[in-house]
Amino acid sequence: MRDVAIIGVGITKFGELWDLSFRQMIIEAGARALEDADIDGKQIDAMYIGNMSAGQFICQEHIASLIADHAGLAPIPSTRVEGACASGGLALRQAVISVASGVHDYVVAAGIEKMTDVMTEQATGALATAADQEWEVNAGATFPGLYALMARRHMYEFGTTEEQMAMVAVKNHNNACMNPCAQYHTRITVESVLKSPPVVLPLKLLDCSPITDGAACVIVAPAEKARKMDRVPVIVAGTGQASDTISLHSRQSLTGLMATTRAADMAYKMARVGPEDIDVAEVHDCFTIAEIMAIEDLGFCKKGEGGKLTEEGQTEIGGKIPVNTSGGLKGKGHPVGATGIAQVVEIVHQLRGDAGKRQVKGAEIGLTHNVGGTGGTAVVHIFKRGD
Amino acid sequence: MRDVAIIGVGITKFGELWDLSFRQMIIEAGARALEDADIDGKQIDAMYIGNMSAGQFICQEHIASLIADHAGLAPIPSTRVEGACASGGLALRQAVISVASGVHDYVVAAGIEKMTDVMTEQATGALATAADQEWEVNAGATFPGLYALMARRHMYEFGTTEEQMAMVAVKNHNNACMNPCAQYHTRITVESVLKSPPVVLPLKLLDCSPITDGAACVIVAPAEKARKMDRVPVIVAGTGQASDTISLHSRQSLTGLMATTRAADMAYKMARVGPEDIDVAEVHDCFTIAEIMAIEDLGFCKKGEGGKLTEEGQTEIGGKIPVNTSGGLKGKGHPVGATGIAQVVEIVHQLRGDAGKRQVKGAEIGLTHNVGGTGGTAVVHIFKRGD
Repeated sequence: MRDVAIIGVGITKFGELWDLSFRQMIIEAGARALEDADIDGKQIDAMYIGNMSAGQFICQEHIASLIADHAGLAPIPSTRVEGACASGGLALRQAVISVASGVHDYVVAAGIEKMTDVMTEQATGALATAADQEWEVNAGATFPGLYALMARRHMYEFGTTEEQMAMVAVKNHNNACMNPCAQYHTRITVESVLKSPPVVLPLKLLDCSPITDGAACVIVAPAEKARKMDRVPVIVAGTGQASDTISLHSRQSLTGLMATTRAADMAYKMARVGPEDIDVAEVHDCFTIAEIMAIEDLGFCKKGEGGKLTEEGQTEIGGKIPVNTSGGLKGKGHPVGATGIAQVVEIVHQLRGDAGKRQVKGAEIGLTHNVGGTGGTAVVHIFKRGD
Repeated sequence: MRDVAIIGVGITKFGELWDLSFRQMIIEAGARALEDADIDGKQIDAMYIGNMSAGQFICQEHIASLIADHAGLAPIPSTRVEGACASGGLALRQAVISVASGVHDYVVAAGIEKMTDVMTEQATGALATAADQEWEVNAGATFPGLYALMARRHMYEFGTTEEQMAMVAVKNHNNACMNPCAQYHTRITVESVLKSPPVVLPLKLLDCSPITDGAACVIVAPAEKARKMDRVPVIVAGTGQASDTISLHSRQSLTGLMATTRAADMAYKMARVGPEDIDVAEVHDCFTIAEIMAIEDLGFCKKGEGGKLTEEGQTEIGGKIPVNTSGGLKGKGHPVGATGIAQVVEIVHQLRGDAGKRQVKGAEIGLTHNVGGTGGTAVVHIFKRGD
C-alpha cells in the first residue's frame, strides 16, 4: 500500500441553486478541482461519487454514469457509493483504497446533492429514509426527533444546556460568514437560537442544518506524484469507517456514536496520531448536539464535556481545537451527499494555509468526521500537511 | 496485489416474495453464504452491498448500515454501491479490490432488491431512473423503448430476427426450469414469445425480464486462505468496469455496448484469457436483444452474428459457449441490485461442478457480465476453477 495525497479541490456555492441543474453542479465542482490540481481530465482513471438520494430528490439513479458522461470522462469506471449523509466520506475512502492499492493513479472523489427541486416536506421525507423506516420512522419518529432524544439524554446525563448547543450554531454561522461558498452569511446570537421556532425540543430551527444544493470534488493521487507538483501536498494519513445499528432504540448509549469512536480509532491508529495532535477538524454538525457529541467521541475532550469545551470558546478559530472553520453543516449548508467531500475541501485549504480569514495558524494535521443517519455509519479521515 | 477467491455463495428464491421483508431476504442469502464458506460471521471484515433503489422501492436509504445491523455485524465497515442494474457487479469489484489490496481479508459482496412492495407502474418508473431522466425519459422514452430502438437497429444492420430473439427467452426459461431458485419454472416456445403481448415492438412481454424480489451473497477472501479450505476454490482471475454515455442518443452505435467491450477487455487482459477460453457465461439479458448484443460484445462471435449463434444452439448447455445456465435475468428473475451477485453464484456452482442438471461438463473458466441502464455502466468478471 502506497501513500496517498489530495492534489486538487473544487466546490460550488452551497445554497438554493435554482439556476444550476444536478449535472451542471458536479461539472462546476469537478472543473475547479482539475484546475486546482493543474491536471487534465484525460488523466483521471476512475471516479467515486457520494450521493444519498438522487432517486428521491431528482428522480435519477445511475448518477455515476451520468456524471462520467457529462464530464466527458467515459469510459473510465465511475461508481456511486451511498451511506446516507456519510456518502461523501465513503466515496473518499473508496478512492483512497483504490489509489493506495495501485489499482488506479488519479481518482476523483466527489459528492453531490440537489435537494431543492422537490417540496420541503418531500425533502425531509427523503432525509428520513436514512433512519430505520420499518422500526422507527413508521412508528412516528422524525429525523430531528431522533437527535432530540440524544440531546435530551445528553442534557440529563451531563448537564449540557440549550445555551451551549446554541453556541455551536453561533460559532458555525460566524465561521460561515468568512467562507464565500457558505449558504449563510448571517451572524446569529445565542438568544436568537433560543427564540427560534421549536422543531423537536430541545432542538429549535437554528439548531438544525438546512436543506442545501451543492457539489464538491477532490482529486486523489499517489503521494509520490503529489510531491513533484507545485502545490503543498496534503497526505491522507488515516482512514476509518464503522457501522452501528441503524435504529437508535437498539443502542446501548444515546449520548455518543459508537461508529464515530470506532472509525476514529482506525484513523488515529493508521495515522499514528491522537486527538491531541489534531490542529483543525470538520465534524458532522447536522444538529448542534451532534457537534457536541462528535468532539467528545473524537477525543477532543472527555465524554460529557463537549458543551463546556464549546462554551469556553475552545472550538472557535484561535481556540484549542478549532471545529468547523468552514461553517460546518449548520452554516455552510448540508447537501447531504456532498458534505463529506466539502469537509475535505476545507481541511485541504487549512493545511495549505490558504483558508483566508478563517485560517487556523500553523495547521499541520486536520480531521474530517462524516456521519450517516443517526450514526449507523461514520467515516473519519486524517490529513497531514506534506513536505 | 494478491490473488482473490470466492469461498462461499448464498441466494434466496427469486420471485414475488410476499412473505419476506428486505431485511429477512438479505439475512437469508448471507447466512447461506457463511454456511457454504463454513466460516463465522465474526470473521467478516467488511461488506459491500449492491442495491439500485431501495429509496424508491421500500423508502429506505442507508441500507448498508441496516444490513450490518440486522446481520449482527456492526461495527464493521458496510458500504452500498449503486450503478442501476450493475450494482451487484460493482459491489463485487469493490470487495475484490479491498481484499486484493490487503485492506481486508474476508469481505461480503451482496446484492438485493425488493421490487414488489410497490405497484407495478411505480416499479417501472423506478427502473426508468437508470436512464437519462432529463434528456430521454422526460421526452417520453421508456426503458423497454430504449432497448427496442437497439433491437430495431440490430435487425436492420444484421438481419437479426424476432425468432432469434425469442430463442434467447426459450433457452433461458429451459435453463431456469433446472434452477430451484429461479422465478419461472415454465417452459415457453418461440411461438408463445412471438404471440405474447407487445411491450414496445419488436419487444414483446416474453422478451422482457420480470420484476423480482431477491438477494444473493458471496464471500470474498485471499486465495491463499481459500486453498486451505475444503471446497474447490474459485479464483477471481479478472475484473473490469467501464462507463458510457447514460443517454442512448449520444452513442455512436446502437447495436452494441461500448462499456461491455471495454470492461471485457480489462477483465480478459487481467485474467490472461480470451473469449475462446470461456466455458460458461452469465450475461445481462434484461431483454432478449441484450443477450444477443452481449455475446457479440464479449467476443463469443463476430458483431452481428449473435442471433445466428443463438439459433444454432451454441449458447445452450452442451453448445460451444453455454450462456445463462441459471436461467438468466429472463428466467431466473431480475431483482436489479442482486443480479450481478446472483450471476457469480451460478458461475461458482458451475466451476465447482455442483450445478446439478444444468452443469456444463468440465467448466473451468467462467464469466459474468452485468449492465447498468442501457449500458452506461458495465462490469465483467472472469473466474477460474482453482487447484
